Amino acid sequence: MKKEDKILLGHGSGGKLSHELISRLFVKHFQNPWLDKQTDSAILKIQDENIAFTTDSYVVDPIFFPGGNIGKLAICGTVNDLAVAGAVPLYISAGFIIEEGFSFSDLEAIVKSMAEEAKRAGVKIVTGDTKVVNRGKCDKLFINTAGVGSIENKNAHIGEGSLIRPGDQIIINGFVGDHGMAVLAAREELNIRSDITSDCASLSTLINNILHSTDGITFMRDATRGGVATVLAELAGKRQVGIHIEEDSIPVRPQVRSFCELLGFDPMYVANEGKVLIIARKETAGEILKILHRDELGREARIIGHITSDHPGRAWVQTSIGGKRILDMLAGEQLPRIC
Amino acid sequence: MKKEDKILLGHGSGGKLSHELISRLFVKHFQNPWLDKQTDSAILKIQDENIAFTTDSYVVDPIFFPGGNIGKLAICGTVNDLAVAGAVPLYISAGFIIEEGFSFSDLEAIVKSMAEEAKRAGVKIVTGDTKVVNRGKCDKLFINTAGVGSIENKNAHIGEGSLIRPGDQIIINGFVGDHGMAVLAAREELNIRSDITSDCASLSTLINNILHSTDGITFMRDATRGGVATVLAELAGKRQVGIHIEEDSIPVRPQVRSFCELLGFDPMYVANEGKVLIIARKETAGEILKILHRDELGREARIIGHITSDHPGRAWVQTSIGGKRILDMLAGEQLPRIC
Repeated sequence: MKKEDKILLGHGSGGKLSHELISRLFVKHFQNPWLDKQTDSAILKIQDENIAFTTDSYVVDPIFFPGGNIGKLAICGTVNDLAVAGAVPLYISAGFIIEEGFSFSDLEAIVKSMAEEAKRAGVKIVTGDTKVVNRGKCDKLFINTAGVGSIENKNAHIGEGSLIRPGDQIIINGFVGDHGMAVLAAREELNIRSDITSDCASLSTLINNILHSTDGITFMRDATRGGVATVLAELAGKRQVGIHIEEDSIPVRPQVRSFCELLGFDPMYVANEGKVLIIARKETAGEILKILHRDELGREARIIGHITSDHPGRAWVQTSIGGKRILDMLAGEQLPRIC
Repeated sequence: MKKEDKILLGHGSGGKLSHELISRLFVKHFQNPWLDKQTDSAILKIQDENIAFTTDSYVVDPIFFPGGNIGKLAICGTVNDLAVAGAVPLYISAGFIIEEGFSFSDLEAIVKSMAEEAKRAGVKIVTGDTKVVNRGKCDKLFINTAGVGSIENKNAHIGEGSLIRPGDQIIINGFVGDHGMAVLAAREELNIRSDITSDCASLSTLINNILHSTDGITFMRDATRGGVATVLAELAGKRQVGIHIEEDSIPVRPQVRSFCELLGFDPMYVANEGKVLIIARKETAGEILKILHRDELGREARIIGHITSDHPGRAWVQTSIGGKRILDMLAGEQLPRIC
């Protein structure tokens, strides 16, 4: 970026511009081996323990949406970032930035759902902070959560994908695009009626069950901003492997598909908040699917593709009509303030 | 608070209303032994290690002020919260909420000063997040930092003050009120000329030096929002000890004192960002002062009072004209967006 450049909405998209900003600004100046890895959680050594550490701010608009609210989202998002790093999520911090005049009962509803979600995910909210800014200086409520978890040495590679190799299978635990489309439909200005519900959920128990029953997992990542496509495109580039995806095998709810078609969105780029991409050795993929299918949050899990030695650095989709197209990271901003 | 109540600026003041909100909302719903303690850092056990964990969001206005900027402040604040808990600050997370159109060069200047301050304080910024919101939906830039540090068992009581007893001496490491008055004077709308500079600084090295040379420290707290008075009033109430302060011994720069008088502020309630209150056994206070005086950040350190068995639960100030007045927590909001 040039000095005279301005920050664009796309710099917060989770896609190409976000990656550029991170590399050219944050990684450049903060320079250290943890940030260089550009994973969602940093894996730290404190004395003799491996600790996973992550943070996210939440600015979703509207703050209440079908399937959740900004508070539930903040817990799920941070729990999931720790879980996909191979860690057991333990402790959460919560920072609130509140607009003067915000309703106490709305705040209480949000705090209650954070408490419930934390209980469900087995984490404790142990420290926090509250700032209030004058009316008009923020939009209702922003929440930041950071989380720490404990991680066994044998799982420390999972967030990075350093053991990925051709033949590994790519699994998703269910329907894609629900969160993004649910939030979009909930925006008042659109005046849309829909029955789409966000998939916002903590995946820690589900992921813990898989990690305990197989050693074959080589990568996990929750597909939030930028969707499934951005995770796969980024991974292919970073690990210089080829990724092959079968479009027909990607689970999309009919109402999400129609809504996407109407608005010109590709469901593979739409944000999820309860979806994890799991890459695993071929011989363990069947066992992983079995475990996923037993859980409410993995009922619709399926294999959507595999790692290949063809076209290293690229993720390709085999489309339903027989063609092939390349998956790139999300360019620009699709849906501002989706999380 | 009643259901129909609204959030006021005072709920973010760090004073009485903040404490009420924390107790009646966050502590009530998140309920766990860490939050119950209402310290700035939670002390956690992960496997066999004691970890300190803290978070703060920064919404200071203006984002650049004499002596620092929002980024330097975010590092110092979180480093200090860990240090006063008796921990060695190690790792920091950084979450940015940026207004669309914000200047890249301003952001880079802020990020650079975060990198410099992190280096100075000996911490690594290991994980982060960037959100961009539409123009007008936040005020330029908000930053959240969370931090983790390692803490020895023997220091785990320091953040709580559980070993405080009558006779302990109360020390401050220098002039009070600089940060609050520097930020206030920097507000364009006031059109004030002043040479007051924020005391924004990382106290980790200073505190580490003291902790390594004495075991006599019974409490530490950085006196940020709500100032020295709020820390002392809160502590007296929580530990049911009496606190006696000599007004004449509190170091206040002449220009800060005049500015405070002009605006009707009491310097004891004004925010600091590089000031720590240290309570220690009488026999070690002299040694602590010596160590403080050797450091740039403790040059003006002095004893300002002591713990007494009189008036338990109350902090009193002996005024210079011979009277006595009670110190209470900051009521309402003195200076919104001071940190």
